[in-house]
Amino acid sequence: MQQFDYHNPTRIVFGQDRLAELDQLIPADARVMVLYGGGSVKRNGTLDKVLNGLGQRQVIEFAGIEPNPRYETLMQAVEIVRDEGINFLLAVGGGSVMDGTKFVAAAAPYSGDTTDLLKCGFEPIPVSTALPLATVATLPATGSEMNMGAVISYEGGKYPVMSPLLFPRFSFLDPTLTFSLPPKQVANGVVDAFVHVLEQYVTTPAGARIQDRTAEGILRTLIEVGPQTLAQPEDYDARANLMWSATCALNGFIGVGVPHDWSTHMIGHELTALFGIDHAQTLAIVLPSLWQVRKEQKRAKLLQYAEQVWGIQSGDEEQRIDQAIAQTRAFFESLGVKTRLSDYGVEAEQIETVIDALKAHGMVALSESGDLTPDISREILRGAL
Amino acid sequence: MQQFDYHNPTRIVFGQDRLAELDQLIPADARVMVLYGGGSVKRNGTLDKVLNGLGQRQVIEFAGIEPNPRYETLMQAVEIVRDEGINFLLAVGGGSVMDGTKFVAAAAPYSGDTTDLLKCGFEPIPVSTALPLATVATLPATGSEMNMGAVISYEGGKYPVMSPLLFPRFSFLDPTLTFSLPPKQVANGVVDAFVHVLEQYVTTPAGARIQDRTAEGILRTLIEVGPQTLAQPEDYDARANLMWSATCALNGFIGVGVPHDWSTHMIGHELTALFGIDHAQTLAIVLPSLWQVRKEQKRAKLLQYAEQVWGIQSGDEEQRIDQAIAQTRAFFESLGVKTRLSDYGVEAEQIETVIDALKAHGMVALSESGDLTPDISREILRGAL
Repeated sequence: MQQFDYHNPTRIVFGQDRLAELDQLIPADARVMVLYGGGSVKRNGTLDKVLNGLGQRQVIEFAGIEPNPRYETLMQAVEIVRDEGINFLLAVGGGSVMDGTKFVAAAAPYSGDTTDLLKCGFEPIPVSTALPLATVATLPATGSEMNMGAVISYEGGKYPVMSPLLFPRFSFLDPTLTFSLPPKQVANGVVDAFVHVLEQYVTTPAGARIQDRTAEGILRTLIEVGPQTLAQPEDYDARANLMWSATCALNGFIGVGVPHDWSTHMIGHELTALFGIDHAQTLAIVLPSLWQVRKEQKRAKLLQYAEQVWGIQSGDEEQRIDQAIAQTRAFFESLGVKTRLSDYGVEAEQIETVIDALKAHGMVALSESGDLTPDISREILRGAL
Repeated sequence: MQQFDYHNPTRIVFGQDRLAELDQLIPADARVMVLYGGGSVKRNGTLDKVLNGLGQRQVIEFAGIEPNPRYETLMQAVEIVRDEGINFLLAVGGGSVMDGTKFVAAAAPYSGDTTDLLKCGFEPIPVSTALPLATVATLPATGSEMNMGAVISYEGGKYPVMSPLLFPRFSFLDPTLTFSLPPKQVANGVVDAFVHVLEQYVTTPAGARIQDRTAEGILRTLIEVGPQTLAQPEDYDARANLMWSATCALNGFIGVGVPHDWSTHMIGHELTALFGIDHAQTLAIVLPSLWQVRKEQKRAKLLQYAEQVWGIQSGDEEQRIDQAIAQTRAFFESLGVKTRLSDYGVEAEQIETVIDALKAHGMVALSESGDLTPDISREILRGAL
């Protein structure tokens, strides 16, 4: 096991109909900005429950945070926060709203050029303070409700924004608030959570048994409850297990003391930025092909994944790995998430623009070993056609 | 899944030779009390490393916190803390030292009768402030390094002390600091961690899949690394996995949204208080007999445990449960931890004094269902002879 630091101070409030407890968790004199997306939280009543929970506090709403939240949109919120003396941010939505709110929390008190905050990769951004933020998570997918990271879109790129100051103070996870989600978003959430686990698990062996067993447990749970919750959206237990799986997939717990990959995400980000393909869809496209190309580097963990997650025990190593990759692809497809570039209209001649974008964004030494070059990314994308 | 709140703000600093980082984690002007036990940390050099890490800070040592830390001992520390204006407590030791330090942290600023703090059971104690505390954990066992609980001995009883103010600010977990532990303490630690998981897992089904899979992962890990680390105390990876298992067994993560039992602990506490049997030994005595007696109430989870942890798949339900209980007992015995009252010289006629003590301490409605009466405790203890 590698040495590690683990610290996750986010308070989770999990269960049905608890939004009245907002009143106990936010200072009575707070000036609150409630941030949300396209308005579904307004239509389905979640926003009203949140506003009720906030009682007599001064509240300003900021609507319109889009999927893959854009710097320009978020800077509008930053201006209002500064002008109105907002001192508490409450995100009501999915990963994009939560990520966007994190950026606002960091950018509002920042006196420098706020585009600085997009230039740090996975290193902490250079801020010494951030506004307190919290979330009401309405989409089980990104884990943003219990981590310190965000991804922000700016000038055709997607940029990580990380800081220990950006852990939500608390996050409400109410499975019933997700019952009305479109099936496509639920399926995307399952894939997103699944690949979050894989980026921290199918790397190189580190002998970290608790992390491995928990990662396998989350994967097995997603395989079980993903189809269940798509078939029966109002089955509380299935949705609750999906929701907690998605949170635990990226709250740091399974990632301590082990190598991380994230190359599927980095290549996928370019596909979203260039072609508008949903984040989870890009992961479903890249991952199976990446594994085919990186079979040697990931051999031990792919074999472990095959056995512990899919129960594959027969055949030689090559067959077991191929079967595990095939079952992963089939799982994504069974959820309705297509796994080929061609399914999204991207063709061979467009691959070079992806490679150019990776180079432009410095994504030239990806993976747990830092040895995944643009040439290998090209091979992966060709394999994903 | 039941509704739950989860919040664990303790920072974990895991790995070898990191005590110099103490300097960054404690305020430069802190007046620090370093608390420890019988002096092994002095003999093996751990204390010197800690004092080095504290640099120029003002430090007072408090030695002599005994196993099953006593109220009277801890009140001596409280007096010194108050007299000397100590404002940071650093526990260097195992569960007893960490638990004792938590009590000191709560009692020192408390203006009322400090025995009040022993009377709250599993409810939070009535304090509005506590001194900041941190730990350097030298024994993988209790999980105290990452939770908000302590158990304090007073007038022949063992009393839980719980408060969210008592989470350590940070805990150093360095497996190499545990290499010199006597085998008996390591074996006790494995059993303690194992039973911590079982108290939260072998209850009634709650459909909480991540918690169940993680619990099973910790149990399987302990079964693997327990014997390994006893045979090869300086095998870093085995000891590291034991250490992280013990922390994760009782840091709250596997216990969210599921019923808890804790009757093995409550009955065991009386055996320690009356007969001086080590805490882990009492758990090894009580648990197998409790399961025999409570087979019906725990049927579903015992069957799950049999299959998921021990791989028992053949035989009828009764046989599979009996085999799981037998393998659990054999596991404890294989570590050198005896599982019968008679192994510790306790005889049938002494059981009634245990029952009297349980009644005196209000332990009359134990278990996940609150239906475990003193009569059932008597049956369990008779079965454990």
